[in-house]
Amino acid sequence: MQNLIRIGIVGYGNLGRGVETSIQKNPDLELVGIFTRRAPESVSPCFSDTKVFHMDDLNDLQDKIDVLILCGGSKDDLPKQTPELASKFNTVDSFDTHARIPEFFEAVNEPALANKKTAMISIGWDPGMFSINRLFGEALLPDGETYTFWGKGLSQGHSDAIRRVAGVKAGVQYTIPSQDAIDEVRSGSRPVLATKDKHTRECYVVLEDGADAEAVKQAIVTMPDYFADYNTTVNFIDEETLRNEHNRMPHGGFVIRSGNGSAEQTQVMEFSLKLDSNPEFTASVLVAYARACYRMNQMGQYGAKTAFDVAPGLLSMKSPEQLRKEIL
Amino acid sequence: MQNLIRIGIVGYGNLGRGVETSIQKNPDLELVGIFTRRAPESVSPCFSDTKVFHMDDLNDLQDKIDVLILCGGSKDDLPKQTPELASKFNTVDSFDTHARIPEFFEAVNEPALANKKTAMISIGWDPGMFSINRLFGEALLPDGETYTFWGKGLSQGHSDAIRRVAGVKAGVQYTIPSQDAIDEVRSGSRPVLATKDKHTRECYVVLEDGADAEAVKQAIVTMPDYFADYNTTVNFIDEETLRNEHNRMPHGGFVIRSGNGSAEQTQVMEFSLKLDSNPEFTASVLVAYARACYRMNQMGQYGAKTAFDVAPGLLSMKSPEQLRKEIL
Repeated sequence: MQNLIRIGIVGYGNLGRGVETSIQKNPDLELVGIFTRRAPESVSPCFSDTKVFHMDDLNDLQDKIDVLILCGGSKDDLPKQTPELASKFNTVDSFDTHARIPEFFEAVNEPALANKKTAMISIGWDPGMFSINRLFGEALLPDGETYTFWGKGLSQGHSDAIRRVAGVKAGVQYTIPSQDAIDEVRSGSRPVLATKDKHTRECYVVLEDGADAEAVKQAIVTMPDYFADYNTTVNFIDEETLRNEHNRMPHGGFVIRSGNGSAEQTQVMEFSLKLDSNPEFTASVLVAYARACYRMNQMGQYGAKTAFDVAPGLLSMKSPEQLRKEIL
Repeated sequence: MQNLIRIGIVGYGNLGRGVETSIQKNPDLELVGIFTRRAPESVSPCFSDTKVFHMDDLNDLQDKIDVLILCGGSKDDLPKQTPELASKFNTVDSFDTHARIPEFFEAVNEPALANKKTAMISIGWDPGMFSINRLFGEALLPDGETYTFWGKGLSQGHSDAIRRVAGVKAGVQYTIPSQDAIDEVRSGSRPVLATKDKHTRECYVVLEDGADAEAVKQAIVTMPDYFADYNTTVNFIDEETLRNEHNRMPHGGFVIRSGNGSAEQTQVMEFSLKLDSNPEFTASVLVAYARACYRMNQMGQYGAKTAFDVAPGLLSMKSPEQLRKEIL
């Protein structure tokens, strides 16, 4: 019997909890524990047998961990953590600031290469599965256009923006892909669409006592950058409704490639996700890539890697023979 | 500037023509020529500058060709051709008899390995892109079910079956995925569905003069294996309509994975294709994998390979740096 791949979780928010849950569904993986900057006893894991350590304990466990899954944020945690930890461990992270990926790659690649570690960066669904599908689209239909739509999904940034409006007690915002735009793209007509043409914004707002609903609505729909350019709807609800009906973190979206084989033949490829829980799905992607990370390290493929570098078969629990027989 | 990757096409039917067309859209590839068992002068290529050779000329051109794309059929051509040619060339084929893939893999792997060649087998969309998405589904959502739907597509086998019915002059059959079944699967309810629950069959039939329409219809809808278990509709049309409206080879389908992150959170992944031309799309997949085949051979990855073994980045004309910057 093969040894289990031993995983450590660094950081324990929604994403870390998702990774803890997902590891339970992957019998070839074993969770060594959660590593946190907080006092370990203050952390309540989802499963009672999950161990919690302080980050400082990581150094002592270097030969007990095959891959670290880094569950911190892209703004403050990962730019510092990944380069540091990739010099000692194989790592997987979900760094998702698209514009800064090239510099992040360089910062991680050097220490990983120097220490014969494999560091999978920017894993998840966008960047991640959506990126792979953008690549498939371009490579398979070079004469074509790619369209990415996001949603229906809760947007943290836009929800924060609503909550800063005077008179708003609480609120959430969903980004909704425009059905008209999706239908147009699926038809193969290759329309030119800006992000604002592809999405609408739906707000659910709880007012402060005595606040002027119309004034709040105007402040939201005219807010530059966030809402002014979009078709935005504002719904007023009470606190209980917000708590009961808007307490999830759904997300998803579509990557559509519309291209031509020859002039008269249109081909449309589409990949989509409909997620009840954005962090749980991202976590499950990280976990599958942790398996690939370990295998690539064993094969001597060191340095920073992205989803583009990973052969699909490396993600699976099954052997190559089994995969060819069962699902090819 | 990098050298162009030099491609040869073996076999020149619909698929071979699609490959010839697709190579035009890939500026890093160069077509050496078409290789045929027919008299070369009897073949009319799509582009006037395409060279046509006899199969026997292949041996003299071994150092002028980087990858051969084999465009023969899975029943008679490829089982013999691929093992033979993979001992002398890097090859890509679309062997699609799912049940026989393991033995085909073995038959190709040995000569390719022995001669340091790379042989990509079973490339296309099913097997191929659909297989990759079945793998992604299983690996990312281990607690789930995968559903493959085919269509709307012209089925050659079922069209042939219609044409064998007495009183039928000509006809075509389309396999249609059931919208109800797709909706049920997309809802995340994980229904149990047989192939017949997932598809309906739509026939367009031209009658012989004086044939009894009702008798023909009954013969079709009650035909065992092909139609009896399915919801089948039969439409009678004239020859001109058949010629004008049913002269294409559309196909496509859906791979849907419905799974659970945790008990209460359903996640749905979906990949779909809507193809005006089945052979042209298959051809465009073969061409992208020819690029990967060449690169993997350069990297020393010899033997038989499938879509599961190919890192997505190897399919792209772009460099890894460019891919990370532009589409990750």
